[in-house]
Amino acid sequence: MVTMSVEQPLRYAYLGPEGTFTEAALLALPESGSVEPVPCPTVPAALEAVRRGECTAAIVAMESSVEGAVTATIDELASGEPLVIVRELLLSVSFALLVRPGTAIEDIKTVASHPVAEPQCRRWLSENLPDARWEAATSNAHAARQVQDGVYDAALAGSFAAPRYGLEVLAEPVHDIAGAQTRFVLVTRPGPVPPPTGVDKTSITVGLRDNHPGELMEILEQFATRGVNLSRIESRPTGQGMGRYFFFIDCEGHIADARVGEALMGLRRSSANLRFLGSYPRADGQAPAVRFGTSDEEFAAARAWLDDARGGGAE
Amino acid sequence: MVTMSVEQPLRYAYLGPEGTFTEAALLALPESGSVEPVPCPTVPAALEAVRRGECTAAIVAMESSVEGAVTATIDELASGEPLVIVRELLLSVSFALLVRPGTAIEDIKTVASHPVAEPQCRRWLSENLPDARWEAATSNAHAARQVQDGVYDAALAGSFAAPRYGLEVLAEPVHDIAGAQTRFVLVTRPGPVPPPTGVDKTSITVGLRDNHPGELMEILEQFATRGVNLSRIESRPTGQGMGRYFFFIDCEGHIADARVGEALMGLRRSSANLRFLGSYPRADGQAPAVRFGTSDEEFAAARAWLDDARGGGAE
Amino acid sequence: MVTMSVEQPLRYAYLGPEGTFTEAALLALPESGSVEPVPCPTVPAALEAVRRGECTAAIVAMESSVEGAVTATIDELASGEPLVIVRELLLSVSFALLVRPGTAIEDIKTVASHPVAEPQCRRWLSENLPDARWEAATSNAHAARQVQDGVYDAALAGSFAAPRYGLEVLAEPVHDIAGAQTRFVLVTRPGPVPPPTGVDKTSITVGLRDNHPGELMEILEQFATRGVNLSRIESRPTGQGMGRYFFFIDCEGHIADARVGEALMGLRRSSANLRFLGSYPRADGQAPAVRFGTSDEEFAAARAWLDDARGGGAE
Amino acid sequence: MVTMSVEQPLRYAYLGPEGTFTEAALLALPESGSVEPVPCPTVPAALEAVRRGECTAAIVAMESSVEGAVTATIDELASGEPLVIVRELLLSVSFALLVRPGTAIEDIKTVASHPVAEPQCRRWLSENLPDARWEAATSNAHAARQVQDGVYDAALAGSFAAPRYGLEVLAEPVHDIAGAQTRFVLVTRPGPVPPPTGVDKTSITVGLRDNHPGELMEILEQFATRGVNLSRIESRPTGQGMGRYFFFIDCEGHIADARVGEALMGLRRSSANLRFLGSYPRADGQAPAVRFGTSDEEFAAARAWLDDARGGGAE
Repeated sequence: MVTMSVEQPLRYAYLGPEGTFTEAALLALPESGSVEPVPCPTVPAALEAVRRGECTAAIVAMESSVEGAVTATIDELASGEPLVIVRELLLSVSFALLVRPGTAIEDIKTVASHPVAEPQCRRWLSENLPDARWEAATSNAHAARQVQDGVYDAALAGSFAAPRYGLEVLAEPVHDIAGAQTRFVLVTRPGPVPPPTGVDKTSITVGLRDNHPGELMEILEQFATRGVNLSRIESRPTGQGMGRYFFFIDCEGHIADARVGEALMGLRRSSANLRFLGSYPRADGQAPAVRFGTSDEEFAAARAWLDDARGGGAE
Repeated sequence: MVTMSVEQPLRYAYLGPEGTFTEAALLALPESGSVEPVPCPTVPAALEAVRRGECTAAIVAMESSVEGAVTATIDELASGEPLVIVRELLLSVSFALLVRPGTAIEDIKTVASHPVAEPQCRRWLSENLPDARWEAATSNAHAARQVQDGVYDAALAGSFAAPRYGLEVLAEPVHDIAGAQTRFVLVTRPGPVPPPTGVDKTSITVGLRDNHPGELMEILEQFATRGVNLSRIESRPTGQGMGRYFFFIDCEGHIADARVGEALMGLRRSSANLRFLGSYPRADGQAPAVRFGTSDEEFAAARAWLDDARGGGAE
Repeated sequence: MVTMSVEQPLRYAYLGPEGTFTEAALLALPESGSVEPVPCPTVPAALEAVRRGECTAAIVAMESSVEGAVTATIDELASGEPLVIVRELLLSVSFALLVRPGTAIEDIKTVASHPVAEPQCRRWLSENLPDARWEAATSNAHAARQVQDGVYDAALAGSFAAPRYGLEVLAEPVHDIAGAQTRFVLVTRPGPVPPPTGVDKTSITVGLRDNHPGELMEILEQFATRGVNLSRIESRPTGQGMGRYFFFIDCEGHIADARVGEALMGLRRSSANLRFLGSYPRADGQAPAVRFGTSDEEFAAARAWLDDARGGGAE
Repeated sequence: MVTMSVEQPLRYAYLGPEGTFTEAALLALPESGSVEPVPCPTVPAALEAVRRGECTAAIVAMESSVEGAVTATIDELASGEPLVIVRELLLSVSFALLVRPGTAIEDIKTVASHPVAEPQCRRWLSENLPDARWEAATSNAHAARQVQDGVYDAALAGSFAAPRYGLEVLAEPVHDIAGAQTRFVLVTRPGPVPPPTGVDKTSITVGLRDNHPGELMEILEQFATRGVNLSRIESRPTGQGMGRYFFFIDCEGHIADARVGEALMGLRRSSANLRFLGSYPRADGQAPAVRFGTSDEEFAAARAWLDDARGGGAE
């Protein structure tokens, strides 16, 4: 998936500008020292840079423990040229209130941030800045830059963004619920799947064949019958009319696991538009509970039994 | 399974003596002209003759449309040295009242038959022979022989049994419900499975792993998830205490069918004591409805997709 | 259901003649001292005596831990005028070999018994009486009487039958598997259901509506969704042609339990020919595991919530 | 729910300022002539105005056929003081490119809109305004006002917003996929549920009890067993840590329907934090398919049967 060479350095696209949480996630990667970060204005732009081969990989936010799915990421992965997830990482997210040096809290009339940040800080803002107006920005770092430019008075962003834009931290942490995390994924063009580690996750998108009653439950049964637990399911509109959805699913295990493979084949046969989005180590390191009868060994033994029975060697 | 040679003629065991419905079933087989029929006193004895190699095959009753399972057959197939079903056939069953020549209906004080025949003729007997006492016999033909011997006055048996025992038919047909059928199966030692015909049935026995709530439903789900319809399920005691059961199941399709094979592997992994009892053409010729996504072609396509995805060729 | 009065003594029908295991079960009932036992030639005859009002109740065998269902009992309860089970009891069953005084083991050429006894003693017979021929009788006690009459040389029956027929016990116990039990039920005409004890069982028969694929699983789901465990399921032919079945089901709990009631209503709506065959204390005294959310209190709380929500009191 | 009187006019909160699609939805309501529209800066603010009794109702966007759930709406309804949905309506959404009079397409350097509008017009923008930079605004109408103020060069908004902000329509329609719709709901404080019309929808939020494998499937089964179809399911983070979700569900039918009531009681017993969010007529007028055995009449008949059986009147 990712090949290193002296000639062609790793280039990772991310949601810029400098100072975003996504950049912080990129810098948390072990290989970050040898990576050239490529800021992009939007998530789709970052993924497009990978599709076009301009970047080796893109790091994009997938999900916030407070705000939920980053739908732009899901929708982009579900359509267009295939991309796959090869790694995930969890980042604790804590906002700071950034201002131009010398600004006092009573001077703040406008606060800008990415729309995802606003609901996480809503109560804090109403208590501490009841009269300030919130303004949307395309990223928190962009909000910081707009504060630097004098467009707004304050920005909600990571404190690491302050020095980049000549700002200072007036309050930290700023949030309504402590412990927020964001899940980021590293995405590449399709290539060899990262080998199973025993603590893996597999992502797919899948659609309904004909939208008959109970069809979602049948999709879930494909996993349940093989003892594969789901860790997440998101419904997203297909764009083909109100009430038409597809599903983004994370399940426990690796596509190389027999139980996961059989479940995916079941989906491939009975549902529509199945897309494999990668198998990769789980960031939380939580090993799956492998139910009786669903280990690779048991699958292999059952296969051997079947081959024998088909050949006439009953029992 | 069945090999023909000049030296070693086919020997088929059946529930005797001559004149039983089982013999009639044997004689209905296309190869009956070149088969040596071997009467046995009981179903277990007939099956044992195959296990010991004394007979090529045994023909045994499996199920009556009126009386239900022939439990001796199920229990014998479920235990001991493995045997497999290679053929099934349906026989219309109609009883006659056989008596010694000259016997009048008012002379009849006792009527003998196999216990399976009695409930099928109960109402007829109470209306036509209200004062006669019913007596159990090990087979209907044996009852006829006992009438010949003067032990009983009348027997319920197939009319074809009359000439063999010097009896005559006093009434025919004798039954409470018209159209009764018995399902017979031809059983051999394990060997090559009869090739799929597209209109096949597969028989198994399977036990519960730990008898947890819902375990039977999980067994049924192994079939349902793969679109395999069941045509029959019988519960039988394991003999290990009241409330402990195993299940005899007939499903649509052939073990060579991908969907049947995957369902059986699922059972093999998650349940206990799975025993394959054969795949063979359905006697009723009723083709299965193959649900969307469960044909061999779709299984093969899904496998190809999985292999490709595992190798890194997403979508 | 059962009313006592000086004028009209309790009359319990049972499978006779004297000396059967069914009689032994009847005598094990606490009220047996004040009951007049009424021997009947068959199970249907015993149940018919209750339907006609000639007997207060009938005690009939329902199931053997070795031989399985007593199908005559199931089929009789499933059709005709309704009858209900009001009690069950478990009886350990152990056979003895009964002979006329003075008979030695080497004198025995024929052994008679009810067909249910034969498979339970088959191995013992082949080891100890390899040359004797087995003969069917309508009950074990009847076999004993036939030994008394000189028709057969030995009978398999309960040792308690020996004195009644002037026989002696030549061997005891006689069986292939120790610990066999038979489940008997006491059956009456419909009346007040025995009150719940917390350790109850409910019996029903239910048919398929249109025999569509998966319909049996839907029946099981009606129970599973309400947390009602099944303890037994038997399929029986409807008599309307090969491959048409109805089901006899025992489930945990009492019809007065909310979860059982809702499951039965679900069956009543979605399946066919539901017949309630009684709720009664479990003979094994094994209390059911009541799953989270399925107690009567939780049902009542959910009902109160719903009534409130329907009335506009959201949450 | 909504009471009219001369003294107290209807006040409906909506996402303002004037010129938003939400305002257009409000104006499409039949009672709009007698309603005082109350613009609010955010969805939470509009709902809060209802909770505090300042407004009779709020009209809020629930879902876009292109962009999916309006998560602010779901999250606000799922927490805080209960509110209920009493009506839904579908609005076709089509954007126009609004500019100050005299602006030519080649003059446009910046285009502002609500973040929901951007992905619906992304391709159009890249083809028609490849060099313009997109900027986020809190509403499309607010973007229009910012164009009026000279902050940005163009806004994506409904064409009806143009006259309010002294702008003109430079291009229309602007979208990547034709036929986009937005679903709006009218929300009030709890009160009498709108009466069933036969073509209704019911909304709830529900949480997992202990997050065990398969728990989501069990929730779906509560509906499926009663023949209640789901029209939509959204997962949302609970805010209590990555991987913890609750579900927003729309199902067919009305809480007054027996099948819906029983399904909700099942959820109330077996899951957590069930909140009823209203039953109301479906905007699309699509009547539900009522499955065999799930009509109110069949529920009532089954209840009568159960009452009878509990009282001793078997069958």
